[in-house]
Amino acid sequence: MSLRVICLMPRFNVTGLTAARSMSTKVDSKNIGFIGLGNMGGPMASNLMKRGHKLHVFDVSKSASDKMKALGAKVYDKTTDLAGNSEFVVTMLPNNDIVWNTYEEMTASGVNKDTIFIDSSTIDPNVAKQVQKLVKSKGARFVDAPVSGGVPGAENATLTFMVGGTEDEYNCVKGVLEGMGKRITHCGGYGMGQAAKLCNNMLLGISMIGVSEAMNLAMRLGLDPKTFSDIVNSSTGRCWSSEVYNPVPGVTPGAPANKNYAGGFSTDLITKDLGLASGVATASNTPIPMGAMAHQMYRTLKSHGYGSKDFSIVYEFLKNEKNN
Amino acid sequence: MSLRVICLMPRFNVTGLTAARSMSTKVDSKNIGFIGLGNMGGPMASNLMKRGHKLHVFDVSKSASDKMKALGAKVYDKTTDLAGNSEFVVTMLPNNDIVWNTYEEMTASGVNKDTIFIDSSTIDPNVAKQVQKLVKSKGARFVDAPVSGGVPGAENATLTFMVGGTEDEYNCVKGVLEGMGKRITHCGGYGMGQAAKLCNNMLLGISMIGVSEAMNLAMRLGLDPKTFSDIVNSSTGRCWSSEVYNPVPGVTPGAPANKNYAGGFSTDLITKDLGLASGVATASNTPIPMGAMAHQMYRTLKSHGYGSKDFSIVYEFLKNEKNN
Amino acid sequence: MSLRVICLMPRFNVTGLTAARSMSTKVDSKNIGFIGLGNMGGPMASNLMKRGHKLHVFDVSKSASDKMKALGAKVYDKTTDLAGNSEFVVTMLPNNDIVWNTYEEMTASGVNKDTIFIDSSTIDPNVAKQVQKLVKSKGARFVDAPVSGGVPGAENATLTFMVGGTEDEYNCVKGVLEGMGKRITHCGGYGMGQAAKLCNNMLLGISMIGVSEAMNLAMRLGLDPKTFSDIVNSSTGRCWSSEVYNPVPGVTPGAPANKNYAGGFSTDLITKDLGLASGVATASNTPIPMGAMAHQMYRTLKSHGYGSKDFSIVYEFLKNEKNN
Amino acid sequence: MSLRVICLMPRFNVTGLTAARSMSTKVDSKNIGFIGLGNMGGPMASNLMKRGHKLHVFDVSKSASDKMKALGAKVYDKTTDLAGNSEFVVTMLPNNDIVWNTYEEMTASGVNKDTIFIDSSTIDPNVAKQVQKLVKSKGARFVDAPVSGGVPGAENATLTFMVGGTEDEYNCVKGVLEGMGKRITHCGGYGMGQAAKLCNNMLLGISMIGVSEAMNLAMRLGLDPKTFSDIVNSSTGRCWSSEVYNPVPGVTPGAPANKNYAGGFSTDLITKDLGLASGVATASNTPIPMGAMAHQMYRTLKSHGYGSKDFSIVYEFLKNEKNN
Repeated sequence: MSLRVICLMPRFNVTGLTAARSMSTKVDSKNIGFIGLGNMGGPMASNLMKRGHKLHVFDVSKSASDKMKALGAKVYDKTTDLAGNSEFVVTMLPNNDIVWNTYEEMTASGVNKDTIFIDSSTIDPNVAKQVQKLVKSKGARFVDAPVSGGVPGAENATLTFMVGGTEDEYNCVKGVLEGMGKRITHCGGYGMGQAAKLCNNMLLGISMIGVSEAMNLAMRLGLDPKTFSDIVNSSTGRCWSSEVYNPVPGVTPGAPANKNYAGGFSTDLITKDLGLASGVATASNTPIPMGAMAHQMYRTLKSHGYGSKDFSIVYEFLKNEKNN
Repeated sequence: MSLRVICLMPRFNVTGLTAARSMSTKVDSKNIGFIGLGNMGGPMASNLMKRGHKLHVFDVSKSASDKMKALGAKVYDKTTDLAGNSEFVVTMLPNNDIVWNTYEEMTASGVNKDTIFIDSSTIDPNVAKQVQKLVKSKGARFVDAPVSGGVPGAENATLTFMVGGTEDEYNCVKGVLEGMGKRITHCGGYGMGQAAKLCNNMLLGISMIGVSEAMNLAMRLGLDPKTFSDIVNSSTGRCWSSEVYNPVPGVTPGAPANKNYAGGFSTDLITKDLGLASGVATASNTPIPMGAMAHQMYRTLKSHGYGSKDFSIVYEFLKNEKNN
Repeated sequence: MSLRVICLMPRFNVTGLTAARSMSTKVDSKNIGFIGLGNMGGPMASNLMKRGHKLHVFDVSKSASDKMKALGAKVYDKTTDLAGNSEFVVTMLPNNDIVWNTYEEMTASGVNKDTIFIDSSTIDPNVAKQVQKLVKSKGARFVDAPVSGGVPGAENATLTFMVGGTEDEYNCVKGVLEGMGKRITHCGGYGMGQAAKLCNNMLLGISMIGVSEAMNLAMRLGLDPKTFSDIVNSSTGRCWSSEVYNPVPGVTPGAPANKNYAGGFSTDLITKDLGLASGVATASNTPIPMGAMAHQMYRTLKSHGYGSKDFSIVYEFLKNEKNN
Repeated sequence: MSLRVICLMPRFNVTGLTAARSMSTKVDSKNIGFIGLGNMGGPMASNLMKRGHKLHVFDVSKSASDKMKALGAKVYDKTTDLAGNSEFVVTMLPNNDIVWNTYEEMTASGVNKDTIFIDSSTIDPNVAKQVQKLVKSKGARFVDAPVSGGVPGAENATLTFMVGGTEDEYNCVKGVLEGMGKRITHCGGYGMGQAAKLCNNMLLGISMIGVSEAMNLAMRLGLDPKTFSDIVNSSTGRCWSSEVYNPVPGVTPGAPANKNYAGGFSTDLITKDLGLASGVATASNTPIPMGAMAHQMYRTLKSHGYGSKDFSIVYEFLKNEKNN
């Protein structure tokens, strides 16, 4: 009850949004802070503006901020000022340390208690929990809401958000996140959005190597790749990596394999996610033999210069090419 | 064209099948030899009889033969005699050596050139190719047609058959196999049925461990298993092992995990399949790091006494139970 | 030169050490603080007293402190007071966080600039570097000096110390460390003691599994374990784990394998070390496929209740015992 | 007793060996057949001649045979003829199939019962056992005696021979093998020479990767490679691969790492040995997680074109070179 009240009672005067409101009558325009305007954050912030929200932005890169300014966002030098003018603050940052430092600095001199902070970075669930405690200690609310869907998802507002927080907080942030994605999932309490993302991506990283090995072996034994993938996809080996994102060129239309492994989900990113998964597995003393092996394989791929390529390039890496 | 002729022209006098024929008007009753009447072969042969075929059977175990006799099959002491009276011969045997020795003995004194031999055992694709050459050298035809679906599939005639042979041969055996399964897939030339099965099952073995690790880690991090599996199943980690056969008790209705890992697809069998996959990978010099690791893990499970349990028990094996 | 001066110029009045001094004329008696009096720290502190040093001790466990008191040590409630009275402070603590928090608290109100801090805990080299910076910022000196040799080494003063610090600092702490160990190695700059320990132990963890697999396979193939280990030990497979610490009962006299894997170097500890190695590998983006796999295997052993057993029990874990 | 008699009673007239005999008075000149005159077999046969034996040789390559002819060997077209004139027959062949086929053909029409056959190829211990049975069924004797030491060992007559056979047979062949190597080890019954070699080399393959990972991680953490290897070599990580054959250039004088990984023990050969180990592990249902992983890694190296390089090049493969 009280939650609904909080969510519907804007404490801020939203100005200059008349036009946007009339364009998009369904959306209740909000003042939204956005910190981190990179390949993901840039299009996400942009989509929020298209949706009718007023954006307050910060980035260490001036050019990234300038782009948003050109689209109508207000640019800030200090995150404390940004947070002071925002009902919601979305952070989209590269790693644990930067997330923690950003929140420490932003909340150091206190925060508006009605502001809800949403971290969409991919970080250690335990760091997410610590950030929540920090924000709560200042009197405000925080949820973790990492995404999947990559740059295309960010650009087309088709991301999946995995939210960790209370049911009430989930309901509160859902509307805002819908401006950037099409699936907003409630995963559980604080940190559980991060946990869900890491565990899912660990499985993804394993499956992709599994599909790569199976396709490669099948082809070396004489099977046609299309025939074999059809068999797998209607059988017990079926998985997203074989059906939607097959690593063998020519098998799945639209997959990065058909574009020389450009775009997609980079080896750098899956390695980062598996590194985080590995860290939480160590901390929780959970055996992940396959996850650890997948981590090492992608890390080896990075060593060999494939960091920026789509992670399905592991197929190319395994394929026998240079001798018998 | 000529194929159709061959398939429809029985060279044998089929006797004593009047009743069966009238029962099952759609099926063209055949004389079918069946060698290997174990947990799989027994119900498969039985289903062929239900379908209206005349069965000629052989097994080293007298009790297995006797059961078939009671159901109306003709029991043989010598596979050569069995083959001499059969339009089709189905073999369902435990391993490479037994398959090879059986075919060598059965064909030693020549075969009826119209008989089609179908091996549904799971063996090395290269052995399947050698058996095909042997049978061909005697003037008859051979296809490999391993199955998936396990004992329940054998009992309910819902197996999947993966056929390796020519298009004509595939069309020729399809009708017979339909008496024992519901999906009859043409995978390619000789040995390709075996290759497809091994590669699919390698991927299955990898995925199941991947799902087990991801579910276990997710739960230790605090996620609800049902919530997490729902997230995975609508995301990039989605696979058969998570959707249909989840290794965590209580997640997928009907999965062996809910019955203390009884029934299903045994650790012994996935270990056997991964051993065969490993063998062909070595022979073809194909790297299968994940497949090899999965093989070792299931083999370790066997060492720990879980050979007869469903292979999804790998989740229980990984789960931290005795101390953290 | 100046180093020698610093090392030999005690700034503290050493009282009540007359007896000790006369017992051990070779040693220049020092006031040494010792924090962390567990299974390792207890005997180490005790050996320093036997050597003629005056001990100032702290532990969160009163009973651990009381034991040292009975042996003549002065017990403290606050580490700041302890450090204030010590020329050298040795810390022997369980993990990164406890080490960091201890140093933060101990140095919060400043330190005596002549005190040299020595951390003999096993922690992340990067944390060691941070602690060094902290201590340096207060004006004092710090080296990392983790040990190998386990509880027996601690008890018999036969530990190996791996020291990270400047050449001067190494020379300064060497004399003190010789009261607790027999090999004091200078590994490089700050953190390099920890780095050397983690990398060596990662190799040890891998070798032990390698020896276990090789011994097990050899025996299953029919080789006599003693004969095979003799062959290995005079061949290219030779390693410490096969020569000195063979995991098969009856092969190496004195190895834990002969005492039902009691004592020795526990699975818990090798798992901790491999977890740290895994962490620094992730942070430095270094592929360690075998190291990661070894980590997962020992972690699985822990799950199965073998945490407190010597790590060579991995042989028993791999050995086929329950079925074929 | 009887053994000694058999060994010392040559049934053949050895001609034209007067000069050799006078040169090498210690050696009892024998008629020795040698089949397989490649990189290993060539120098081995040559050393036997230098020792004063009369060589009877066969190879599928005419140029290989011609070389031996030039050195004084008698060249044969048929292995049966060769065996008929030899007291000992040494075979040095590439794989299971060629060994089996060679022995089948060579013994098809019977053998001289006094001839002792020695197979120095590296093959599956089970195939060695089968060959022994075959030879025994013809009335003669057979031992397996694979080697380690590589081409330099073959050239300098410093090979290690691992002999599988009875004590008597071991004593019988020892003198001949001493003409080609300096350590002749009796490993146990038939096949045990092969078993010992495979198990030792599996451990070697694992250790080399372990050392490579540890050295690489140590260096990335800031340790000096020489300092770190010294620490390891006097500590628990010590192994042949770190002490004698360090994979990091500049650490061990004489190691292939210093010659751009030329020469030494090729990745192709360790991959072959690990493939054989993997096969016997599968057949005996023995878990070898590390061995399997090592196998896959060397196989991946082959795929990347490093098959002919020394196997210590795995260090280069793991080292981060192309990006962060």
